[in-house]
Formats: sequence, C-alpha cells, structure tokens
Amino acid sequence: MTSLTLINRATCIFNTLIKLPATKQLVPFFPAYHQHYSVSSKQVSAKMATEKTLPEIFKYVDQNKDSYKQLLKEAVAIPSVSCDVKYRADCIRMVHWMQDKLKEVGATTELRDVGFQTIDGKDVQLPPVLVGVLGNDPKKNTVCIYGHLDVQPALKSDGWETEPFELVERNEKLYGRGSTDDKGPVLGWLHTINAYKGTGAELPVNLKFIFECMEESGSEGLDSLLMDKLKPEGFFDSVDYVCISDNYWLGTTKPCITYGLRGISYYFLEVECAKMDLHSGVYGGTVHEAMSDLIYLMNTLVDKDGKILVTDIYKSVAPLTETETKLYTTIDFDPEAYRKTIGAYKLAHNGVKEQLLMHRWRYPSLSLHGIEGAAFQPGAKTVVPGKVIGKFSVRLVPNQEPEEVEKLVFDYINKKWAERGSPNKMSITAQSGRAWTENPDHPHYQAAARATKLIYQTDPDMSREGGSIPVTITLQEASGKNVLLLPMGAGDDMAHSQNEKINVRNYIEGVS
Amino acid sequence: MTSLTLINRATCIFNTLIKLPATKQLVPFFPAYHQHYSVSSKQVSAKMATEKTLPEIFKYVDQNKDSYKQLLKEAVAIPSVSCDVKYRADCIRMVHWMQDKLKEVGATTELRDVGFQTIDGKDVQLPPVLVGVLGNDPKKNTVCIYGHLDVQPALKSDGWETEPFELVERNEKLYGRGSTDDKGPVLGWLHTINAYKGTGAELPVNLKFIFECMEESGSEGLDSLLMDKLKPEGFFDSVDYVCISDNYWLGTTKPCITYGLRGISYYFLEVECAKMDLHSGVYGGTVHEAMSDLIYLMNTLVDKDGKILVTDIYKSVAPLTETETKLYTTIDFDPEAYRKTIGAYKLAHNGVKEQLLMHRWRYPSLSLHGIEGAAFQPGAKTVVPGKVIGKFSVRLVPNQEPEEVEKLVFDYINKKWAERGSPNKMSITAQSGRAWTENPDHPHYQAAARATKLIYQTDPDMSREGGSIPVTITLQEASGKNVLLLPMGAGDDMAHSQNEKINVRNYIEGVS
Repeated sequence: MTSLTLINRATCIFNTLIKLPATKQLVPFFPAYHQHYSVSSKQVSAKMATEKTLPEIFKYVDQNKDSYKQLLKEAVAIPSVSCDVKYRADCIRMVHWMQDKLKEVGATTELRDVGFQTIDGKDVQLPPVLVGVLGNDPKKNTVCIYGHLDVQPALKSDGWETEPFELVERNEKLYGRGSTDDKGPVLGWLHTINAYKGTGAELPVNLKFIFECMEESGSEGLDSLLMDKLKPEGFFDSVDYVCISDNYWLGTTKPCITYGLRGISYYFLEVECAKMDLHSGVYGGTVHEAMSDLIYLMNTLVDKDGKILVTDIYKSVAPLTETETKLYTTIDFDPEAYRKTIGAYKLAHNGVKEQLLMHRWRYPSLSLHGIEGAAFQPGAKTVVPGKVIGKFSVRLVPNQEPEEVEKLVFDYINKKWAERGSPNKMSITAQSGRAWTENPDHPHYQAAARATKLIYQTDPDMSREGGSIPVTITLQEASGKNVLLLPMGAGDDMAHSQNEKINVRNYIEGVS
Repeated sequence: MTSLTLINRATCIFNTLIKLPATKQLVPFFPAYHQHYSVSSKQVSAKMATEKTLPEIFKYVDQNKDSYKQLLKEAVAIPSVSCDVKYRADCIRMVHWMQDKLKEVGATTELRDVGFQTIDGKDVQLPPVLVGVLGNDPKKNTVCIYGHLDVQPALKSDGWETEPFELVERNEKLYGRGSTDDKGPVLGWLHTINAYKGTGAELPVNLKFIFECMEESGSEGLDSLLMDKLKPEGFFDSVDYVCISDNYWLGTTKPCITYGLRGISYYFLEVECAKMDLHSGVYGGTVHEAMSDLIYLMNTLVDKDGKILVTDIYKSVAPLTETETKLYTTIDFDPEAYRKTIGAYKLAHNGVKEQLLMHRWRYPSLSLHGIEGAAFQPGAKTVVPGKVIGKFSVRLVPNQEPEEVEKLVFDYINKKWAERGSPNKMSITAQSGRAWTENPDHPHYQAAARATKLIYQTDPDMSREGGSIPVTITLQEASGKNVLLLPMGAGDDMAHSQNEKINVRNYIEGVS
C-alpha cells in the first residue's frame, strides 16, 4: 500500500461523500467509515470539514504506519486466551491496556464487572467489559462499536512458524495470534481517532465502545450486561447504528458486507472411568476405559462427508427458496483457490461452489474439535485417562433454535450411551448462541454497497459467514438499530488457526 | 518409619546374612541389597564387616532422611519430560545433574552420545546416557544398575493437587512427577553409597551404572549403545547381576519380586485433511474433517469390555497352562481395594481376581491414549484440526512378537481406512518392545524370596507387571546374566498419573 494509493482512494471517497444524499442512510465503508457517518442532514458543516481533512487524515495514517504496527505488537504480546483460566490475568491485563489507550485519545471509560464463571465447581472472576464514550454532540450520529480483546489458544508447537504471541512482519503480512481476530480491527478504531486528533480534525460522529475479553468463550456475562444494565441505564438511547468488525472478506482482494452469521451450539461430552489417570501397563486390561467410550460416542455424530447423524437435526433448517438459490450463483468464490489455500486433498460436496457456500452459511455443520484430559503432547504418553471431555460443536443456521438443537443432541447421545452399556459415568452440557441475519436490502446495507462500488469499482459481495458472533443478536436487540458487519481482514487470515495474520494493507487501510 | 524399626530390620537382615550359605546365590532384598551381594565365597571379610556396620548404616540413613528428601526435591524440579522436545534441554540438564551426584560419591562417569532422533523430519539430539563405574575389586561381585531420569508429562491443570515439578510432603508421602518413576529409586542407589561412605564402611560390591533419560519415550538410542558399544567394549564382562528398580509392589504393604513384564507396541495414527487448523465456523461444512476420520478409525480398535478387535491379535498369545492358572489363586490381590484406589465404577472381567491379574500380566490390552493436534485445553476451542495423530498402544505378552503385532495392526487399520473411503491422507507408524520374563525358579529369585520371608515374615509375591521396561530384555541379552526387578515404590504410587508420589517409608527404607 503506497501513499499514492491511499491518496487516490481518499479522493475517491471524497467524491462519494459529495455525491451521496445527505440523509441518515449512511454509507459505511471501512476505509472511511467515520467520515461516512458524517453524511447526515444534521451535519453539513462536518461534511464540509471532511472534504478538506480526509486527504490529510490518510496522509497522517500512512506516516504513522509504524506506530500502529507497534501498538498491535504490544496487544498481541498479551496472551489473552479466554478459554483457559490460567491466562485469566492476561485477559484482565489486556482490558486495562485497552482502557489506557482509549483514555489517551480522550474517551471516558469504565470497566464493568460481569461477575463470575463456574469452572469445575469453582467461581472464577470474569474479565471486566470495557465500556467507553467519546463525544456527545446531539448534532452528530452516534455509532456503537463492538470488538473483542481475547484470543483463541496458540502454542508454537501447534505448528506456528513464529512465536504466536510475538507479532512478526513478513511479506507485507503481520503474523500473530489476535492480529486479525480481533485485536487488529479493534485497534483500527483507535488509530482512526488518533488520526483525527493528529490532524486537528473534528470527529464527525459520537462513538460508544463495548470491548469484551470473553468472545472466544461464549461472551460470558456480556448479554446480561447489555440487556440488564446498559440498556436500562440508557446507554443505547442515543445509538443510531451498531458496527462490528470481527469477520473477514470472502476472498483476498474483493471486499464484502456481511448480513448473516451462523450460530453455535458447543458441547462438552464427559466420560469418567476412574478418579485419576492410570498407567496403561499397570491398569490396561482391567478397567472399562473412558477413552473408548468417548471415541465411540463421538463416532456416532457425523459421517465422513460431514452429514450430521443426530436424529432430526436438519428438520427445522429454513427451506431454501429460489431467490436465495440465485444469490449464490453470482458470488465471487473460487473453490479451487479455497482448496489450495487450506491445502485440502478434496473439498466436501465435490467442490461445487454453490453447495460449499450453502454449507458454510445456511446449513448446519458439526465439527469434532478435540479431547480434554487425554494425551495431547508429541511422543508416546502411555496413560489411560481417568476423565475425558470430548468437544464438538454444531454451527446453527436460521430457524434452528439453540434449545431445540441441544435437546436433539442430548437425546441422541443419551440413546447411543444406553446402547453402549458401559458402566462408566457420562454427562453432556452445552453453550449455545443463535444464528443471525439482517436484511441485506436495508438502506444501511444498500448505501454501503453503493459506496463500495464507487471506491472499488465493483459490487461488493453481500455475504454471510459460517462463523458465529453471538453478541450480534444481543446488540441488535439491545439497540433496536441496524447492525452491520464490516470486515477488516482478508479471507486467508487464518483466524483460530496456526500462523494467523493480517495483511499490512488491510490493517492500515482499515484504519483510514 | 522410626529408627527403632530400622534397627529391628537391620538386625533381622544381619541374622539372615549369617545363616545363608556363602555362595554366589545371592539374597537380594531391597532394604539391604548391597550388603546381600557381599555374601559371596570371595568375600568373607566383607561379610564380617557387614555384621558390624549394617546397624550403623541404617542409623546413618535415618539421620540423613531430610537431605535425601532434599535431593529428590532437586531432581523432581527438573522437568525432564522426554516425549516433548521442548523439554529436551531439561533432560540433558537432568543427566548432568545426576553425573555430578555420582562423581560426588566417587564414581567414574562418562556421558555417552547416542545420536539423534527424527521428529517431523528434523534431527533432534538425544540426551546422553550416563554410564558409571564405582569399584573394581576382583574379589567382589559386580552389580549393574539401570534406572531412568526422564518422566512422563505433567501439568497442574491435568488435575494435580500440587505443582507436579515441586516435591511436596504430605501425610508421609512425597508427591511429584518422577518421585516414584524413576527418580526416587535412582537416588536410592546414590544414598546407599552415601551411607557407606558416611559411616566409613567399605562397599561390599562393585557397581556399574546405566542411567538414561529417554525411557518414557522408547529408550531411543539405548539398545544400540548397550549392544553395539558397551558390550563389545567389555563393559558387561565383569557384571555378575543386573538390577532394575523401576516397578512397584502389587499392593501397598507387601513386597514382591518381579519376574515378568509386558511389552508395548505404541502407535501413531495420523490423518491429515488440511495443511493447517481451520476455523470451524468459516470452514465447517466444506472439508472432510480429519478428526472424524481418526475417531472412526480409533473406534474400530477395542470394544467397551477391552476386547481388542484387531484381527488375529490373540492368536499367538502363550496358551494358559494349568500350573500358571494355579499361580494366580494364591496371590494376595484385592480387586475391591484396587477398584476403590482408582475410583473406577466397575472393573473389567466382572472384577474376578484371577481374570484381572491375567489381563494385567499375560494377556494383551489396548488403550486409547489421546490425540495430538486436536483441541485439548479447557473451554471451547472451535477449531477444525488440520492434522491429528491418534495415540494408542497394545501391551504385548509372551509369544507375541512386536513385528507380527505391528503387521496385524497396520493391516487392520489399512482395511478399515479403505472401507472409510475418505479423501484425506492417513499413515500409521509404531514403536515396539517385546515382553520379558525370567524364570522365577532361578536361584537368584529363590534366594530373594527366602530373604524377604525372613525379614517381612511373609512369602513375597512372585509377580509380573503389566507395564513395560524394554531395556530389561536388552540388559539380559547384553550381560547374559540374571536380571531382577526390585520395586521400591508401592502399588498406589500412581506413576504416569496425576499426584504421583512415593511413600517416605518406601523411599527411605529403599535406601537402606
């Protein structure tokens, strides 16, 4: 990304702003998101200011690239892994770090206590949620921004080429856990504010922030904070739009706007055969091993082609309409490039584009994630695990209610367990969040699509995502306003995987 | 364990020594193992010395209890986990630490390079093997001692009550990884020498040491060192007996002498669906997941009662004779106490004593240990692993040759894989070691049994073990001499498991 490109794009956005009607049908587009919000009937003066300041802001961003990377490096270095309680102090540290950064750009912040979570019968403090406000000018629109500061686990030994908690730049990419999911996008907002301040320009919108540190672990405590506290306190009363940057372009070059997410129903399937792990030489042959019971149960869930075997699980899935079927044919998606990126031998559904997209977005999928309590290290550990917890999840789609799916899975597992006839102890629990869709014909989305076309000279894909951000629904309900997912990262960023990265281009353009 | 008991036992051993014939049919018994080796036709003077010095030595041991515990604390603090290459430097450190200790008691030592192991196509240096000699008096017998300095992995989060690499004393038990397997027993030999030196007594035997740091990972490099280097160099020429202390009493109060071990055939079953881990939301539904293939394969191996399903695997198992059947009836083994110790809901084989012992000692068992590359952490990791390695092992018994069992398992897995019809990549490899038995009627064992009866007022159980110490066979072959397994720890020490411990009594009496 050269300065020239930045300025070209700035000019382009500038033109767009002039041509668009000055109404509340805004034109969100990531590279100039804040500016677009300035295009409101309330804000002619702000709009005028924008015309002058935008090129300056882009120039400022370009000049401050290195310091923006440095901040991401600091953020990545805090291993805020929310699913493992041994990193809980790091999660809390991460929230405090971000609070300091928001304060530095002038926001009023507070840390909201969201109580405890129960792990193995023990109450463990949840990281606080960082809530912030910047600006309260009644003439401006107010945008509520959500992001998360926690990350998935990562160990170098998982197959990372570099230390996962050390941001490393290579070939115009920034590698590190959280770089794209979701520390990079969160910092994007910060840098935007910084650029306004740095150029002496006035922020064209009021901002409200909600940054949590438990997203990768079911956002525990957040729903209750939003619905039972922030909403009654009036936090959302002034909010006009909600924006979340926690997803990805469909490919690597063409931007998209996201109007749907799958939900998730995550299962913990526990089998216990002994109160401790046993030496397989000394005890092997004398106990009914929990592992063989668990493997048996996990093997009943899905077939080799990914068809879920849980009775009736497809029954409530929204029927496929003709209109929807057509949507998939025009989307720019190359199955062979997708296959090569992940290095798969063969894709499911014989690699047919429409089928692949439908199975990512509108059909449920079941993945077996792993087993807690069993040997996981390299080498030859000869243990008979005493208690093992199989982890699997079902991605939920429109019309599938979590409670209904949980019941189907529980009933199915209980039936299979009875058939097994093992003397061991089995139990299953779940954490779930519903699927979400917005209407892509909403003016908010339509405006975004027009602006995108003006800038990138191409219609953005109106896409859905296979992943889940359960808070999207809660924010929709709490605010009563339109929620837009505005991806910063590219489709090959490998969130949750080894060698997660964000392209320098996406990170820096995302700021602008 | 009070001083009084120590002195009583010392007197008892003293009497035994006088009454036993002065021949090379020695009376090994752990608490006075070195002294017993002095009862040889070569060593009347040493025997006389023994009569005077033994009570003094026991007193010295008792007085030095705390320093012996302190040394074990130091040894446990070095996390010499051999199966995980990230602890390789600790393994090497552990060997150096032990070398220093042997030097301090006057042994001549050397570190023998045993080359490299290949991990993921990369050569990784193996820890050196510590070889030592103490004494070369031609009038004395020479005992070759083997032990290992490496340990199984352990994390507090596995369910340990205390930090696994911090030795903690509680209720007369010393908790810590390696306390009983095998750092405690290895240090036992060191303390015995220390006690002789401390009381100014002459060691009644020559000693040779072989201490390795890869036992828990297939003793890589050791066989070749023993057979291709130490044997041709004449290291074993002067060796009269071989002793290994790396197993356990059958129960918690009655000692035993061990004449058999199962072998092991350990399998690494790898399935790969992608070159990296994938986000289950983004990719779930579009790939043939490696986990479901692996779970399918692992589910074909063993049934809920522990019956191995691999075709023909029981075919070569040594037939059960009537004489052997009778052996099991007299052995002191309480299935209900055993069940309670491990907290199992129900034991296999309906808890019938003889069946349980036979399935620990003389029948093969198959255990599923875990999966490398999959999610193993607490919480809800939503990953589709790209490559997973299932770990399972078969404990081998007399007449089962490793090569034959490996072939049966490979053929079976290949057949099941073909039936699966997955487009993914599967491979399987194995590491194996044969089962071992000595004749329990050998004079070495008979003498040991007589001495045990004199001291403990009960016939020791002549037992076998379900575990595997592959080096036993190599030492038998390399030395051409009788190999005796002399357990130090108790049957509830939980080697390889959480909260591994050694009783203070076993540790301190083991020294004497």
